[in-house]
Amino acid sequence: MKLLRYGPPGQERPGLLDACGTIRDLSAHVDDIAGAALAPEGLARIAALDPASLPAVTGGPRIGPCVGGVGKFVCVGLNYSDHAAETGAKPPPEPILFMKATSAICGPEDDVIIPKGSEKTDWEAELAVVIGRTARHVPKATALEHVAGYCVANDLSERAFQSERSGQWTKGKSSDTFGPIGPWLVTRDEVPDPQALRLWLEVDGTRRQDGTTANMIFSVACLISYISQFMSLHPGDIISTGTPAGVGLGMKPPTFLRPGQVVTLGVEGLGVQRQRTVAWPG
Amino acid sequence: MKLLRYGPPGQERPGLLDACGTIRDLSAHVDDIAGAALAPEGLARIAALDPASLPAVTGGPRIGPCVGGVGKFVCVGLNYSDHAAETGAKPPPEPILFMKATSAICGPEDDVIIPKGSEKTDWEAELAVVIGRTARHVPKATALEHVAGYCVANDLSERAFQSERSGQWTKGKSSDTFGPIGPWLVTRDEVPDPQALRLWLEVDGTRRQDGTTANMIFSVACLISYISQFMSLHPGDIISTGTPAGVGLGMKPPTFLRPGQVVTLGVEGLGVQRQRTVAWPG
Repeated sequence: MKLLRYGPPGQERPGLLDACGTIRDLSAHVDDIAGAALAPEGLARIAALDPASLPAVTGGPRIGPCVGGVGKFVCVGLNYSDHAAETGAKPPPEPILFMKATSAICGPEDDVIIPKGSEKTDWEAELAVVIGRTARHVPKATALEHVAGYCVANDLSERAFQSERSGQWTKGKSSDTFGPIGPWLVTRDEVPDPQALRLWLEVDGTRRQDGTTANMIFSVACLISYISQFMSLHPGDIISTGTPAGVGLGMKPPTFLRPGQVVTLGVEGLGVQRQRTVAWPG
Repeated sequence: MKLLRYGPPGQERPGLLDACGTIRDLSAHVDDIAGAALAPEGLARIAALDPASLPAVTGGPRIGPCVGGVGKFVCVGLNYSDHAAETGAKPPPEPILFMKATSAICGPEDDVIIPKGSEKTDWEAELAVVIGRTARHVPKATALEHVAGYCVANDLSERAFQSERSGQWTKGKSSDTFGPIGPWLVTRDEVPDPQALRLWLEVDGTRRQDGTTANMIFSVACLISYISQFMSLHPGDIISTGTPAGVGLGMKPPTFLRPGQVVTLGVEGLGVQRQRTVAWPG
């Protein structure tokens, strides 16, 4: 299934994308694509519905972030060997974890705001994992059973805030609109191998990233198992699994986003995002 | 006012501590001590109630974390000069920010679980700030107007996970039960100067931390203003403002928590926490 949220920011309604690409309204059946609705029983209840029986949504509404009420947004740094190399870093011996503020989450086609004073806003196309079942010290072998589904994420990053403003990356990862997720959550049953997905990103139509999740240093299953040693993962939590080579920081010379550009990105089978960059309005 | 949440984990009800120390049930008036209830209008509505008209809560229920639905838990590193010195770090030129997973939040008297495999679980008594009004690029001069209130926090930290397991502190700050907050939120009007509060912590009755918020490198107002440049702060978000000297890592030799100990801590005017340490049950 492809699950999504549509409507104005903060007032999104739950929906399902049917086989013809029509959004069907789920609000008679679930409050939100969030928490309990993402647990195995919640997804089974939605799967039992006949999409044709659900009201079709017309008028081309805004698509919101595909998960609501996200408890935490855990990101993984330097998880592709080609990306580690382009930033001049060695592949890490263990996954590098950091947090993106959940207030940074936005819809897949919302404008991305270049932060006030920013000169180094960068892109990062990523495969994101949405947790469906609480995970705490889970072994790698069963880790994927804790996944509700997958979606596209752009882990937008302000490189100066991240690395030149006194330690800890979270500072460069958390600006408003720095976390577009969606367009939809694709349930796990439709993604047989999360390590065999192409992912790509273009800026103004020029391809900048063109990778495959086969090149992850730590697999999705490994990451879930690893992270669950350090914190409990709950339904609706998101893990963004790192980005392949091709970020602006790695270009020669480094090249960053300016207002008025268009970023498009996608992960195989999970849909496409499209963001316009705009200046901080203040 | 002193606002709190009481009842079993996950089923807490909102309450108010009256002048005699009796908990009064607020659930007929607010859903939770969270989000909108913490905004100026929400707090004004609660302040207009006569505590004597609210049902008294009997039976000594568990006290839960004093804020529900926390959107993000932003922590500040090395924000007291004496603590920076004891860890061997220079005072930072700008505030160091990191995130604690919101899943780490627990009540002020809940057991603290020493994580599986942990040998370096440490304590950090802190003044925590609860946001009441959205803050985005706010000047220092008006930053405190965005505060709903203050509470005690113990920023529990696993030093090996924090610093010896591949970058980014969040890994050592996010274990379940590593974020006791409360016992209550004291509204801003009752804390005329957040830079003049004593704070202390004892392990098994031996005083380990004994500081004052006067020794913060960056004041509460400065921190709110600073953080709001990097992310929007929303009602119910928490900022834990750093710890004074006296953590286990700074002792000679370094000394950490073992199962079966009792940690007590407090901040002047904000109440006292008491945690028993227990072994990971798995």
